Amino acid sequence: MAEQNGLKNRGYSRADVEERRTAAEGFTGATLDTVSRYSIDPEGASKNIENMIGTTQIPLGYAGPVRIDGENARGEFLVPLATTEGALVASISRGMSVINSGGGARAAVYSDGMTRAPVLRVEGIAHGRRVMEWIETHRDEIDAAVAGTTSHGRLTGMDVYPNGRSLYLRCVYSTGDAMGMNMATIATEAICRLIERETGAVMISVSGNMCSDKKPAAINMINGRGKTVVAEALIPRDVVEGRLHTTAEAVTETNTRKNLIGSSMAGTLGANAHAANMVAALYIATGQDPAQVVGGSMAITTCEDLGGDLYICVRMPAVEVGTVGGGTRLPCQSEALSMIGCLGAGNARKLSEIVAVTVLAGELSTLAAQAAGHLGKAHAALGR
Amino acid sequence: MAEQNGLKNRGYSRADVEERRTAAEGFTGATLDTVSRYSIDPEGASKNIENMIGTTQIPLGYAGPVRIDGENARGEFLVPLATTEGALVASISRGMSVINSGGGARAAVYSDGMTRAPVLRVEGIAHGRRVMEWIETHRDEIDAAVAGTTSHGRLTGMDVYPNGRSLYLRCVYSTGDAMGMNMATIATEAICRLIERETGAVMISVSGNMCSDKKPAAINMINGRGKTVVAEALIPRDVVEGRLHTTAEAVTETNTRKNLIGSSMAGTLGANAHAANMVAALYIATGQDPAQVVGGSMAITTCEDLGGDLYICVRMPAVEVGTVGGGTRLPCQSEALSMIGCLGAGNARKLSEIVAVTVLAGELSTLAAQAAGHLGKAHAALGR
Amino acid sequence: MAEQNGLKNRGYSRADVEERRTAAEGFTGATLDTVSRYSIDPEGASKNIENMIGTTQIPLGYAGPVRIDGENARGEFLVPLATTEGALVASISRGMSVINSGGGARAAVYSDGMTRAPVLRVEGIAHGRRVMEWIETHRDEIDAAVAGTTSHGRLTGMDVYPNGRSLYLRCVYSTGDAMGMNMATIATEAICRLIERETGAVMISVSGNMCSDKKPAAINMINGRGKTVVAEALIPRDVVEGRLHTTAEAVTETNTRKNLIGSSMAGTLGANAHAANMVAALYIATGQDPAQVVGGSMAITTCEDLGGDLYICVRMPAVEVGTVGGGTRLPCQSEALSMIGCLGAGNARKLSEIVAVTVLAGELSTLAAQAAGHLGKAHAALGR
Amino acid sequence: MAEQNGLKNRGYSRADVEERRTAAEGFTGATLDTVSRYSIDPEGASKNIENMIGTTQIPLGYAGPVRIDGENARGEFLVPLATTEGALVASISRGMSVINSGGGARAAVYSDGMTRAPVLRVEGIAHGRRVMEWIETHRDEIDAAVAGTTSHGRLTGMDVYPNGRSLYLRCVYSTGDAMGMNMATIATEAICRLIERETGAVMISVSGNMCSDKKPAAINMINGRGKTVVAEALIPRDVVEGRLHTTAEAVTETNTRKNLIGSSMAGTLGANAHAANMVAALYIATGQDPAQVVGGSMAITTCEDLGGDLYICVRMPAVEVGTVGGGTRLPCQSEALSMIGCLGAGNARKLSEIVAVTVLAGELSTLAAQAAGHLGKAHAALGR
Repeated sequence: MAEQNGLKNRGYSRADVEERRTAAEGFTGATLDTVSRYSIDPEGASKNIENMIGTTQIPLGYAGPVRIDGENARGEFLVPLATTEGALVASISRGMSVINSGGGARAAVYSDGMTRAPVLRVEGIAHGRRVMEWIETHRDEIDAAVAGTTSHGRLTGMDVYPNGRSLYLRCVYSTGDAMGMNMATIATEAICRLIERETGAVMISVSGNMCSDKKPAAINMINGRGKTVVAEALIPRDVVEGRLHTTAEAVTETNTRKNLIGSSMAGTLGANAHAANMVAALYIATGQDPAQVVGGSMAITTCEDLGGDLYICVRMPAVEVGTVGGGTRLPCQSEALSMIGCLGAGNARKLSEIVAVTVLAGELSTLAAQAAGHLGKAHAALGR
Repeated sequence: MAEQNGLKNRGYSRADVEERRTAAEGFTGATLDTVSRYSIDPEGASKNIENMIGTTQIPLGYAGPVRIDGENARGEFLVPLATTEGALVASISRGMSVINSGGGARAAVYSDGMTRAPVLRVEGIAHGRRVMEWIETHRDEIDAAVAGTTSHGRLTGMDVYPNGRSLYLRCVYSTGDAMGMNMATIATEAICRLIERETGAVMISVSGNMCSDKKPAAINMINGRGKTVVAEALIPRDVVEGRLHTTAEAVTETNTRKNLIGSSMAGTLGANAHAANMVAALYIATGQDPAQVVGGSMAITTCEDLGGDLYICVRMPAVEVGTVGGGTRLPCQSEALSMIGCLGAGNARKLSEIVAVTVLAGELSTLAAQAAGHLGKAHAALGR
Repeated sequence: MAEQNGLKNRGYSRADVEERRTAAEGFTGATLDTVSRYSIDPEGASKNIENMIGTTQIPLGYAGPVRIDGENARGEFLVPLATTEGALVASISRGMSVINSGGGARAAVYSDGMTRAPVLRVEGIAHGRRVMEWIETHRDEIDAAVAGTTSHGRLTGMDVYPNGRSLYLRCVYSTGDAMGMNMATIATEAICRLIERETGAVMISVSGNMCSDKKPAAINMINGRGKTVVAEALIPRDVVEGRLHTTAEAVTETNTRKNLIGSSMAGTLGANAHAANMVAALYIATGQDPAQVVGGSMAITTCEDLGGDLYICVRMPAVEVGTVGGGTRLPCQSEALSMIGCLGAGNARKLSEIVAVTVLAGELSTLAAQAAGHLGKAHAALGR
Repeated sequence: MAEQNGLKNRGYSRADVEERRTAAEGFTGATLDTVSRYSIDPEGASKNIENMIGTTQIPLGYAGPVRIDGENARGEFLVPLATTEGALVASISRGMSVINSGGGARAAVYSDGMTRAPVLRVEGIAHGRRVMEWIETHRDEIDAAVAGTTSHGRLTGMDVYPNGRSLYLRCVYSTGDAMGMNMATIATEAICRLIERETGAVMISVSGNMCSDKKPAAINMINGRGKTVVAEALIPRDVVEGRLHTTAEAVTETNTRKNLIGSSMAGTLGANAHAANMVAALYIATGQDPAQVVGGSMAITTCEDLGGDLYICVRMPAVEVGTVGGGTRLPCQSEALSMIGCLGAGNARKLSEIVAVTVLAGELSTLAAQAAGHLGKAHAALGR
């Protein structure tokens, strides 16, 4: 009874949290002690969660510092990582140290746009054609509809994919330094309501899955979502041999047989060793959406043996990050963003380059370890 | 100087953490206050992270209770979810409530095995054939090599994929209630060392990416990784109409145009609305590997209009979870597992069914909301 | 000796063909009789094959007539099909007859462009950025380079995909009524030579596989290659029941479980029953490149039950056809093209719509047969 | 009138063919002259086509001879190729000549099985589980059902993929030397009828698209369909330099940037230059199903620089060929099969190795030409 009442409490104060936690203990029989000893203000999380009963604490560490000479990120960065996977931070850190020995990493952002792809129901080819023509000839009205929902977002492109009685629009927005999904959703709904009124098409879903958010979709790998970023580094031969105990040739062979050929044989979107690990740890630390690790997992890692030096590169087609809004507002996450100078407006592209360089470091370390033949032992030693 | 020294501290005590945190503040100029106010014992996280400076607190809530009549999970569950995405917990909870109105969800686990797929270098077709024959005829020795590394794991299958000078083995292990990646890695390395000695093949990587861990790979969607789980529910017509304000026909149409057709047009592995959201929130809460959200994101959601009642189902081919080891040992994560009766041995399949039902609830709620035409408004109201 | 001399004959006359054929008989021991009794002029095939020894005769039939009310194809068409698969022509013809009963099919072409995607080697991110900037700012010179190689082709778009030391350009051309691969290849090489001279980039391959020709690639399914075409038909309830012995509901269920869900679970690009069958038979009959059946195989078939009437639609993202050049010049193939009024310039889009409607008819017939539960029996009866 | 009567003629005699042809000329206004001058007996094609009006003649040439030291194909082969793509035969022949200089190609078949994957409708998880259990415990009855339909085919495996109310079975058959699709279809239908009777499941389609026939599906690339074949060759340095005018390093670089990285970035199943070209030409010449070029297009080509020598390899997971039945019965096609000693029973695996070696030769030639920097010019010179 009281339990049920507690469970149904919808408040955001610490007392409300406590009432729910107690009720949850009663309902489940579990002792919820550590989760209740948190240091953030639950009122501040009111836009981030419902039914809050405490917090989950994820160990936070750092890798680096790493030197980055990016188009947006420049300097030395100590990268915050939240993870429970032993050896991960150490491995990334090792990669960063080696990258520094080669003068640091370079990075660039090639495209930047958040997408929402509604699906509209039309009557068939003829009606769909009329809707397409209306869209093509009423861009001003569409832009005005978007402007009515957001001052930060702007529609920068729209691809149309007709399929009989289904019409998909992939709307691309610049969203400032917000990751931008919510902004894009609201703006897209406004576009659809306009189209509905003017053409008789019916919005079936504001997301027709060609966006595609949090699903492993080739459309994102090819056409990009969020930021498309590339990072690279050159590791001199003596560093490869002295620090990594392997050779550029061996690392390249490992990358080819594993990441390129093996990924192809497995039917994979992307080709990397464990990009998702680095993405997850950095996203959780900095308040990004951890479900968007999916987009980050489609990285392609390439290696080349340049006369004994090792060239390594990662291409990430879908780094969906922001430095304002969402989880970035929470205190721990804000602190992590401030560690890399990425808190607040003006920093989203910078953050995306740091993501790519962190992935680069983790890829380098793992590939080199495998090339040196000691991956399993390292794990065994670290006792996971 | 002191900074650098602090950054290089490799200790695990609270004082070590504090020294590093202070050094990180010095290095970055950031104030790291909230992350330093944590309630877990850093020594207990020594196998989960390096360079620890504190914790990231993720708001923890619950959805449910939800009634599950699974092959492994039975009863009413209050599901812990750690997230920073507003409206997510409320939406899942709504789905669960609706599922309860239909008598609860059913679930089953169809396969269970962790994979590691090394790539070996051979001399070509002829040598590769000899290696394959050796493997086929020496299964006892291979099993013994595995047994030498683990008492919990057992090799249950091995698929061989020859490709000229590269030979891929996809080893499948039963790993008890551990997620099992580390166990599988160590056992696989032992297998490879044996094969190397006996055949002259050379292990290039203990993971040749046909495993495939944390990458969106068709091989996992098709042949499974971790647990392959299905969950379903039937929502009576009056509930669909009264609670969800839509119809089974409309939800089914939404699912078809969005999840089935739209996902296909986008070149997606899987077909769902936002499975990764539920997976991420539950994985983070319970100490699973958040990078394995990638495997969870390949769910397929289907809906049917059964005479006005709504049948909904999710198939998840790769639920990679454990209830012992890894992040599950940490206190907040243990508490979350105990909320659903999944702490410790004997519970991994049960947990995987709870994952699938949670995804089912989230899918149901989102699809129904879209079918009812109010997704954007809900988000706007919740102020994300 | 004489044999070897015969085999090495490089002439194009009937006597040369005969000499080679005789030599081939000598070398292989086979009797090559039927292949030598052909009715085309081998000199006329000199641009289509080398080492000609005769012809392979593929049985040629027709399906239809089918009524099409397309944006490009209008009227009644008797569609030529070259196949050795029994029951295929009959099945397509049945589908067309049913389509006619519903008033015919509608079709539209949404995009039209042949692609070539060279890969250039650059020195890394910085050099790649300079090359990209040069390309962006020298479109006139690039157009001039294209114009120097073709009077029919025109560069209509270029997407750039940087990846460290590899830079991919996906060049899109309008190619008139030629399928256009050769035109696109030559023009692209000219573009690359210009870029090489001006920027120091090195063309590694005129095709870097993002084109992508004759490979099952998501990029073609998403962004299109050749013509993107949609065809649809509405089959009235009485025709579905009276002629197809099934219902719109049953056909839709078959399409959903088979083409939509089954294809997704199998990790398929596209979602159809057997589009490649129709594409192959029509391509071979009309002198298209049969290897481009691959592009045609990525069709998506959708069905809807509209109050008892059956709506069926196919979307084909990559119909790579031409009505001039290549195999269309050969006499049998020209005759087949003239059967559908598609011989020569001005007809490529029309042809692509006929392709889509033929696929539509084949899909309809097969899905309906399966829905009516007699696929296997039909095959058995026709004795394949 | 007469026209319509002619078009509706369903006979198989030459006179019937002529009546239809004349009617088709009347209906379409086209002159169908060359197609009517054929040398095969139309009665003999009665199981291969309906509505026959003549034949399409495809120029037939040969590539080779090529030396093969396969597990099934051994000796020197002159490979028949039917194509209308100028330069293709010459290019393959060049590749074969170079392969011979290195001592010939090696090849092996690793798996061999034709698949059919019906989808059954069940009531949900519980019913599906009962159906699965029935299947597991009644393999004898299932085998008997298969035996009742075929004396050549045998069920060698069955994978089950449950998905709520849909249950997919992927049945694998050994089919002797027939390609085996029809045999597999009929046997599978018998299995399904048995399951229907015993369990109450309902066969929705004998093909639930997890087979997957003639669609680009990862399941075939990973688990194989028809024959899984690998072919390889080693080209000595002096041949690479003297005959191909390039280096092993350059060819390997081309393969990596184009086939491996480029294909990955394009979201491709497989990684090759133009395998479908060779497959199509050989399939058409030998009476294979040209729509199954789709399966052949998923080849993976790899290259290695072995101290200056060039190692090249193709892996083809889905070579769906037969040497009895279907199009192989037709006279031209039989003659082509006899050229390579593959006519009739006992030859299907041999044929599959010849397919793979022919693809190998075509890949080698194209990659080497691109590495030598003269692809476009070659095409231009040959005037396509």
